[in-house]
Amino acid sequence: MAVNRFYGKILDIDLTRRSYEVKEFPEEWIAKFIGGKGLGAKILYDELKPGVDPLSPENILIFIPGPLSGTIAPTGGRWAIVTKSPHTGLYLDSQVGGHFAPKMRKTGYDIFVIRGRADKPVYLYVDDEKVEILDASFLWGKGIFETEDTLRQMYPGAEIGSIGPAGENLVTFALIGFNKYRHAGRGGAGAVMGSKNLKAVVVNGKKRLEYYDPKGLREMVRELNKIIAEHPVMKRRREIGTPMWVKMSNEGGFLPTKNFSRGVYEYADDISGERMRETIWVRNKACYACAIACGKFTHVREGEFKCNEVEGPEYETIALMGSNTETNRLDAIAYANRLCDDLGLDTITMGNVTGFAMELYERGLLKETDGLELRFGNYKAMIELIKKVAYREGIGELFSRGVRGAAEQIGQGSEKFAIHVKGLELPGVEPRGSWGMALAFATADRGGCHQRCWTPTAELNGILPRFSTEGVAKFVKEVQDERAACFSLVLCDFAPFDVSQFAKLLYLVTGVALSEEEYLKTGERIWNLTRMFNVREGISRKDDILPARIMEEPAPVGPAKGLKITKEILDKMLDEYYELRGWDKNGIPTEEKLKELGLI
Amino acid sequence: MAVNRFYGKILDIDLTRRSYEVKEFPEEWIAKFIGGKGLGAKILYDELKPGVDPLSPENILIFIPGPLSGTIAPTGGRWAIVTKSPHTGLYLDSQVGGHFAPKMRKTGYDIFVIRGRADKPVYLYVDDEKVEILDASFLWGKGIFETEDTLRQMYPGAEIGSIGPAGENLVTFALIGFNKYRHAGRGGAGAVMGSKNLKAVVVNGKKRLEYYDPKGLREMVRELNKIIAEHPVMKRRREIGTPMWVKMSNEGGFLPTKNFSRGVYEYADDISGERMRETIWVRNKACYACAIACGKFTHVREGEFKCNEVEGPEYETIALMGSNTETNRLDAIAYANRLCDDLGLDTITMGNVTGFAMELYERGLLKETDGLELRFGNYKAMIELIKKVAYREGIGELFSRGVRGAAEQIGQGSEKFAIHVKGLELPGVEPRGSWGMALAFATADRGGCHQRCWTPTAELNGILPRFSTEGVAKFVKEVQDERAACFSLVLCDFAPFDVSQFAKLLYLVTGVALSEEEYLKTGERIWNLTRMFNVREGISRKDDILPARIMEEPAPVGPAKGLKITKEILDKMLDEYYELRGWDKNGIPTEEKLKELGLI
Repeated sequence: MAVNRFYGKILDIDLTRRSYEVKEFPEEWIAKFIGGKGLGAKILYDELKPGVDPLSPENILIFIPGPLSGTIAPTGGRWAIVTKSPHTGLYLDSQVGGHFAPKMRKTGYDIFVIRGRADKPVYLYVDDEKVEILDASFLWGKGIFETEDTLRQMYPGAEIGSIGPAGENLVTFALIGFNKYRHAGRGGAGAVMGSKNLKAVVVNGKKRLEYYDPKGLREMVRELNKIIAEHPVMKRRREIGTPMWVKMSNEGGFLPTKNFSRGVYEYADDISGERMRETIWVRNKACYACAIACGKFTHVREGEFKCNEVEGPEYETIALMGSNTETNRLDAIAYANRLCDDLGLDTITMGNVTGFAMELYERGLLKETDGLELRFGNYKAMIELIKKVAYREGIGELFSRGVRGAAEQIGQGSEKFAIHVKGLELPGVEPRGSWGMALAFATADRGGCHQRCWTPTAELNGILPRFSTEGVAKFVKEVQDERAACFSLVLCDFAPFDVSQFAKLLYLVTGVALSEEEYLKTGERIWNLTRMFNVREGISRKDDILPARIMEEPAPVGPAKGLKITKEILDKMLDEYYELRGWDKNGIPTEEKLKELGLI
Repeated sequence: MAVNRFYGKILDIDLTRRSYEVKEFPEEWIAKFIGGKGLGAKILYDELKPGVDPLSPENILIFIPGPLSGTIAPTGGRWAIVTKSPHTGLYLDSQVGGHFAPKMRKTGYDIFVIRGRADKPVYLYVDDEKVEILDASFLWGKGIFETEDTLRQMYPGAEIGSIGPAGENLVTFALIGFNKYRHAGRGGAGAVMGSKNLKAVVVNGKKRLEYYDPKGLREMVRELNKIIAEHPVMKRRREIGTPMWVKMSNEGGFLPTKNFSRGVYEYADDISGERMRETIWVRNKACYACAIACGKFTHVREGEFKCNEVEGPEYETIALMGSNTETNRLDAIAYANRLCDDLGLDTITMGNVTGFAMELYERGLLKETDGLELRFGNYKAMIELIKKVAYREGIGELFSRGVRGAAEQIGQGSEKFAIHVKGLELPGVEPRGSWGMALAFATADRGGCHQRCWTPTAELNGILPRFSTEGVAKFVKEVQDERAACFSLVLCDFAPFDVSQFAKLLYLVTGVALSEEEYLKTGERIWNLTRMFNVREGISRKDDILPARIMEEPAPVGPAKGLKITKEILDKMLDEYYELRGWDKNGIPTEEKLKELGLI
């Protein structure tokens, strides 16, 4: 079948030479890697030599919507950024929401590959007619909100991605902000952008996206939006959003509390989604083409954080900046959230950094704190720490590379309290309370990440037995593959569609027809490719591990009381997992598997 | 000929009852009043009883794009707001640019009529599917920039009109802000909105605008954009924007200086458009569908106003907040400009108020100033005065009704230095240096306004003799009629098209065919209708007058040195003007004229 190129154009920008070229990738890559995460991994793998410094001009920053990004497919606002992470030194993709994807793809370019380093601050402007690399000296130093507001005024109708001071200062967990509150959040894509002296990317495409079967697509979109409208979990997402998880996590015993020392927080009700709905909630917000509208726009109505506005806090932010630092005030969390969004810091890592710093301070392992009393619950100290980290001032410098980087400098056994996998701090699940997530974290391609496979729903619903290794490896492997494909389309984590529906959407938009089996095989291919990238950087079984606290300290309270994820438990799950994956005992994909997947 | 309703739907919102209804106006009104200004005047005239308090629930606020607003017609970003002015007590239309019109018309409603008063702060949201009146307590008290940024985040892709503290506090020259820097600026529409407890209007239409002859329209748009591209004055507008007038006005001797005491400013070069281009200019900005791009986005790069950003200052702001207050610093003017835009104050009136206050202070007529040293050139005092006026604090209360209102309270002959016509302060032309503008100001329907007829170009080009009454009345009358039609389409002041082109555009969009003569007759009809509105409020010849300074003090320097617009000169022009208009000696339209125009 002749494949029309509904997705295929790359704009390749060299900031060093201030030049660009337009390319197409081979058609068959859509079937093999789809787009987004998968195709980004392919490009990154092919382009980067092993060992490249992520903050050097040799690293590339790939803005890579998938074939469904920016289309009318439900949740098609999602897209991906792929680069080598300065936080982990490994493969990184960040999945982004908001409204950037359609305006980007409508320029006529589906993918931006950004390489090199400008000699002074610049921003990139792309529309249907032109590609410009422009002086950004008047934007440098500004927060993301002001940068975006300024550029939005200068370019009405455009969409903007930008970095804040954290990205400019190369904080390794700096994010790229879109629509103020939507980010390429985890793993430090913002620092890569900062290292390229690239303050912002402005897109203002007005071309029409063409579809392989527009009529069929419109019909299917209607059908899928009906599924969303009637789906009970989507109703809950619309009502409470991701913070619906605060109570469930806490009751399940896996709400990270006090730097992951436990999974139960006595004040969880104070920071719950239900409380948020009653107090600071103003209105729901949806990303482009999304009928779920899980976003919650909030406004603090009284007290010291009066008038603070933010889209959020999301569950992850509440877990890490709330219970994990023992902050039981939604208004303080919302304020810290906004500050991170504006300065350009990942709230998950920043919440971990804060909890870690507080634990070290209380244990007497951290003495020089610029006068900050870093006790658990001291949200004022958290707020000051956020600012110091973004500007790498004083104690902020120490924490500007995350908990692993700080532990390396502090020594004194502090690594024991550093909650990360492969350098990426854990998100809002305390793994002793969710053994599924224990394996998911240990094996996630970008380090301690919840998006590659989410097991708590299955564990709370009895689909996976709790506190057991039974069936975990198979579940994690299959979901990772399926998600890898979904994040390549790109559609959202929350899109409640099945594999046949995802594959059909891909077909209607691009004309590339994959059976369910082929679609899942593509996901597996992508997962193996990101693993190979990491293997090339030195990753193996020794790195598929959990934080010492999780493996050595029994959970003190809650459903998981007395349990820890011992090496024995983890090994059992890893053995099964590697076998199912066709990887060797050391976690390296076998030649046979790579051949089967067409990767070698 | 059957007229399709390409323009005809009214959304009529009652804030008191929190209800709305959808109406259509009679088809034949398009030929009679076109839309925008003309149709707004018709609705206002029919709806309001004489003597209605503009700040009472009985006043109506009409958001009224014309048939060309929001279409692809060049400069079709323009549209109008019509209401009874709380500043003058008379008819008011404000012409607005930016990007609001298309998003408004694409909701399916061409016109919003807003009546009543909400019992607490609300904002209005309208898209293709719904009309909502929503709680705005979380927005009340905010500046326009923050209000707009917040609502833009909540409603991606939407366009927003909002008021700042000045509108909330019913300052009678409060504006409504759009795209931060584009306003319904003159005459206090923002106070009317504030009096209705309406903080903002959010529109997010996505419907397609239909055209009577889409192919013909597209062809004509190409042709007209070519005219714009090749027109030497448009090139200059693109290069320097409205501040191109600073040097020309100054050389012509009509740049308002030191509260209109003269028309020559020794530091004009320091505040010129050319200087602006070299120093604070960053980038041009265009309104929707405009290839002229006269807007100038600026950024102050150093000094005490470092990082101040604004779209502007425009010529009028430079003239009134610059030379008229003897402020010779572009950075201070840009800062004051931004402050007014955010707090929601008309810069022309605010510059007049400042110059007036400074003159009274220096003359010893103003003693209580909350410690402000209101000397000419003291831009810091101007900045403080702006804040005080917006919040009606201390001395700000005195000036919150403009120069006429302040003079009434101050007495002591201060009215002599109050530069206004019918309560609306004069814009950036000192009329002793431009006799054409003297008559234009005296007769403009909303008071001292430069947009109803602009004579300086004709005077500098020898089309009208300078310092002479010869031909002035005919010129002013004809331009007023022609502009009344243009502001009803609505297209921009700067659109360089002729009457046949305007009329053809109207035909291509609506199917309503007017000959050139009929089109101009429509303009005349509209001008007579606004006059009738004002006559009903008590306006007559006695009010078609100029400020005492202009009529009694000879210009001290410059080309107009020794000249003043005496009562004799003005009377001569008025007599001719009334005759040409078919109005009686007292400036009242005759029954014969009104019948001829089909107004009675």
